[in-house]
Amino acid sequence: MKVIKGKQSIEFEKPPYLLSWASVVAQKEGEGPLGDFFDQVIDDPFFGEKTWEMAEGRFMKQAAMLAIQKAGLTKNEIRYAFAGDLLEQNTATSYGLKDLELPMFGLFGACSTAGESLSLASITVAGGFAEHVLAAASSHIGSAEKQFRFPLEYGNQRPLSATWTVTGSGGFIVSKKKSPIKIRGITTGKIVDYGMKDPMNMGACMAPAAAQVIYQHFEDYSMAPKDYDAIYTGDLGEVGKDILIRLLNENGYDISKVHGDCGLEIYENETQDTHSGGSGCACSAVVLASMLTRKLINGEWKRILFVPTGALMSKTSFNEGESVTGIAHAVLLEKEET
Amino acid sequence: MKVIKGKQSIEFEKPPYLLSWASVVAQKEGEGPLGDFFDQVIDDPFFGEKTWEMAEGRFMKQAAMLAIQKAGLTKNEIRYAFAGDLLEQNTATSYGLKDLELPMFGLFGACSTAGESLSLASITVAGGFAEHVLAAASSHIGSAEKQFRFPLEYGNQRPLSATWTVTGSGGFIVSKKKSPIKIRGITTGKIVDYGMKDPMNMGACMAPAAAQVIYQHFEDYSMAPKDYDAIYTGDLGEVGKDILIRLLNENGYDISKVHGDCGLEIYENETQDTHSGGSGCACSAVVLASMLTRKLINGEWKRILFVPTGALMSKTSFNEGESVTGIAHAVLLEKEET
Repeated sequence: MKVIKGKQSIEFEKPPYLLSWASVVAQKEGEGPLGDFFDQVIDDPFFGEKTWEMAEGRFMKQAAMLAIQKAGLTKNEIRYAFAGDLLEQNTATSYGLKDLELPMFGLFGACSTAGESLSLASITVAGGFAEHVLAAASSHIGSAEKQFRFPLEYGNQRPLSATWTVTGSGGFIVSKKKSPIKIRGITTGKIVDYGMKDPMNMGACMAPAAAQVIYQHFEDYSMAPKDYDAIYTGDLGEVGKDILIRLLNENGYDISKVHGDCGLEIYENETQDTHSGGSGCACSAVVLASMLTRKLINGEWKRILFVPTGALMSKTSFNEGESVTGIAHAVLLEKEET
Repeated sequence: MKVIKGKQSIEFEKPPYLLSWASVVAQKEGEGPLGDFFDQVIDDPFFGEKTWEMAEGRFMKQAAMLAIQKAGLTKNEIRYAFAGDLLEQNTATSYGLKDLELPMFGLFGACSTAGESLSLASITVAGGFAEHVLAAASSHIGSAEKQFRFPLEYGNQRPLSATWTVTGSGGFIVSKKKSPIKIRGITTGKIVDYGMKDPMNMGACMAPAAAQVIYQHFEDYSMAPKDYDAIYTGDLGEVGKDILIRLLNENGYDISKVHGDCGLEIYENETQDTHSGGSGCACSAVVLASMLTRKLINGEWKRILFVPTGALMSKTSFNEGESVTGIAHAVLLEKEET
């Protein structure tokens, strides 16, 4: 009954819908090229909290509550939450969502979390196990730099290959109820290890995983780049984008005409000093919840592949000399004809 | 078609099955009361690796491969992996499972991960989206103490309320294919915050979450403690067990006759110096994959509720003075009548 496609994909027979979405970001994102499209821009990076971690949780809570409200629902009508962040032990998610009191599946997919949460939310709704569920992901420049690199206060210099972690959160209500955006299917990624070890060059670590899942998506769906209005990766940045396009070219698919990267949309890299672009779980989540959904809704696009990309690393694995593996999850979104 | 029950539960119309399971543990667990029931006891706590984190990953890989083998399958027949561990950014899972090359959903539910992974695996199989999937969880005393408390080399004294992190991993194949153990349903937990702040007393932090999900399970299923042969929490230990029984008593359910705790089964606390009992993602996973499944298979039990319990904390949240919230996920397992 459900269509299991090829090696890594599902095409939903009864597709779930993106009933609503919300993006909440901080000042820097608000000043970027997508500033006008975000639902809320919060000037205080602490969002009234005392620590970066609690601030990040507050961004997620806000995005979740706003998505629920925009769907015309109350939190009691949300059956499950699927959510995650970048921090050790999902600190932001646990603190951010606890007041919502939802049955909760905590996820970790690094910056691919928006794709992972939308995928599991879609399986749950399409399987008939819920009417409405929440999918959410967050990140914060303050908590992420402290977690993975240097505290902001240290003022370290960042190489040009480094990305800038997006502060904010995207929340989505995935639902049985029809809406203008249908989740036609998903292609779930594998852990891909190219032996990259540079945490200041995440794009290169993630590009092979994005290439693998996009390639398999084309194969599983028997579609090609020309069938998509856009294919958006999460946060490969300038460096990773080039690698992705080259890897797919070597495997017979030229996505250069339709490829975009959320990390390259969210900041004006030259004037905002963000180097290789935006990154973090929130990067793909808030770009989907603003620009990408907008272009689907207004009819500019009819079909896009949304591919958040994650670098699976920790301070410990880095210090122990392990490589940074990547993962990416693809979600196939279509404008519902009405 | 699918039966969504009450506030937090699903009863599967076409229940998935536990097709196979495998437990791989270290020497201390092998010397405990369940030693004879584990599939493999690995004497070297590093399992041939150079770090605790990679060792933990190796335990998970071994449990996963063994479960696949015991199911009579190859890894190419496994559609998805649902797995997680306790470490920052799921380090053990990412490194442990990468060689299996499975489409992968990384999870974080602290020590409730075995329940979370079995729940999502069940939804995916029962929804018709896969024939066989892997659910796995791991922990390691070396990596966990380093992550959350003190490196083992420091030799700190542990209070009597502290638990001992189980070294090992449990792997399960959840399948459409009939087997003697049916997953009748699940009850998914919420984040519960009682304001507890002591990372040396995790049982007290998790007991309220276990009480909430067990209470709601009874309500959703219109069942009572007498309807179960056993109700096993994950790792509440001596301290948490008392709190759980008291909390449920106050709410009208006396589970004292059927309650067991995986953390209280795995070690001989007095002679093995493990204080309040075992803990960690592996604790509930390996006890399910050994003693609990065994008693269902041999007919001693017909119905059990398996309730892994997690304490959602990180070094950072602890250092910042935040409380340790809890979560627990219940899985209803029944002997299939043949």
